[in-house]
Amino acid sequence: MKLNKTRRLSLVEQVTTQIGSLIESGQWRVGYRIPAEPLLVEELGVSRNTLREAIRALVHSGLLKTKPGDGTFVISSSVLGVALQRRLKESNLLEILEVRHALERETALLAAVRHTSTDIEKIKLNFAECEESALVKDYATFIEADIKLHKSIVKAAHNQLLMDLYEQVAESIQLSIGNMITNYQPIPHSKLVNAIIEKNSEGAAAAVDEYIQQFKDRIQAATEDQQ
Amino acid sequence: MKLNKTRRLSLVEQVTTQIGSLIESGQWRVGYRIPAEPLLVEELGVSRNTLREAIRALVHSGLLKTKPGDGTFVISSSVLGVALQRRLKESNLLEILEVRHALERETALLAAVRHTSTDIEKIKLNFAECEESALVKDYATFIEADIKLHKSIVKAAHNQLLMDLYEQVAESIQLSIGNMITNYQPIPHSKLVNAIIEKNSEGAAAAVDEYIQQFKDRIQAATEDQQ
Repeated sequence: MKLNKTRRLSLVEQVTTQIGSLIESGQWRVGYRIPAEPLLVEELGVSRNTLREAIRALVHSGLLKTKPGDGTFVISSSVLGVALQRRLKESNLLEILEVRHALERETALLAAVRHTSTDIEKIKLNFAECEESALVKDYATFIEADIKLHKSIVKAAHNQLLMDLYEQVAESIQLSIGNMITNYQPIPHSKLVNAIIEKNSEGAAAAVDEYIQQFKDRIQAATEDQQ
Repeated sequence: MKLNKTRRLSLVEQVTTQIGSLIESGQWRVGYRIPAEPLLVEELGVSRNTLREAIRALVHSGLLKTKPGDGTFVISSSVLGVALQRRLKESNLLEILEVRHALERETALLAAVRHTSTDIEKIKLNFAECEESALVKDYATFIEADIKLHKSIVKAAHNQLLMDLYEQVAESIQLSIGNMITNYQPIPHSKLVNAIIEKNSEGAAAAVDEYIQQFKDRIQAATEDQQ
């Protein structure tokens, strides 16, 4: 009886870890409907109860979501991402912006000294898209290009941990700011981009300091408007 | 049958969330052995299977650990903490140190402008402990005092999100550095502490830049020694 219990626990844990790895490695992408129960039971060689329990554990940790009558879907690819997003929901925008400032400044500093020529090509391309869409006041396109620009800068810093943390924080800010600021004004990034290209790390960091301050001022103004 | 299944799923989820909250709120502290199964079954008014499944979900997310024949213990108070620690284990020390640099620099900047008189009292007290233990070369005490000093500075920044992230990252670095550097040399923090007291944010940030660079140099040297 006791041995049996231990075996069952470890089986659930094994199946949970196995499915978790498929998701975190990107083999099962966000939006993917996972195979039907009988198929998984057969492939994994476990009982239906074991499989169900593993899936419930993954639902609890936020990687899967079961839609009754429809199936079970991958809704996130990272347990850290889910935990961070949950934590960010409890934070106010200023707190998050300060964390973004910290990560983005370091990113700019490192990108200025570590970028490869491929990194610079991508940064220039995304920057050009930002400029073009700002010029014609197509702000929906601008926001997307702006996100791509920041991602290409983070990539040029060549620190995967910084990148993972930054992407979660940036996403959360994008959502909050989108909801908050109705009069959208794009912030130009020529100073940042040029400093990175010229390998001027202090200049890149100073550019970040400057536009984060602009963000803070806008949030301050938007908060006052709402009162 | 279908209704029954849904009800069971939501019960497990409810119990998982309820126990999770007891842990995350600190009512069940790290190290605490949770009450025996029959007691919890009675208090929560759920079946043994439901309780067991909830506990397994919490074991999977890293908050609880079951020691066979001994009981189930709280091993972490934060899902985000567990996820971050797992992520940090996959990162190298330089990557983590750069993230620490980012968070610590912002923290110093904010602490310099936001500190209260209570914050400063604590910072001074912890700093004095660092100085005393370094003077008599009691490095075990120094390391503890140093951690307390950094915590009191982070607290003075008054940003809970920054504090949560920083504590996880700092803990992970403390562990790695302890394993790596055998010839421990304390880094003095008088420049940082004085800049914060004088509300000199740029000076505080510069002090952080300086000692993180020292850390990087030491890690570099230790890595070369090992080769």
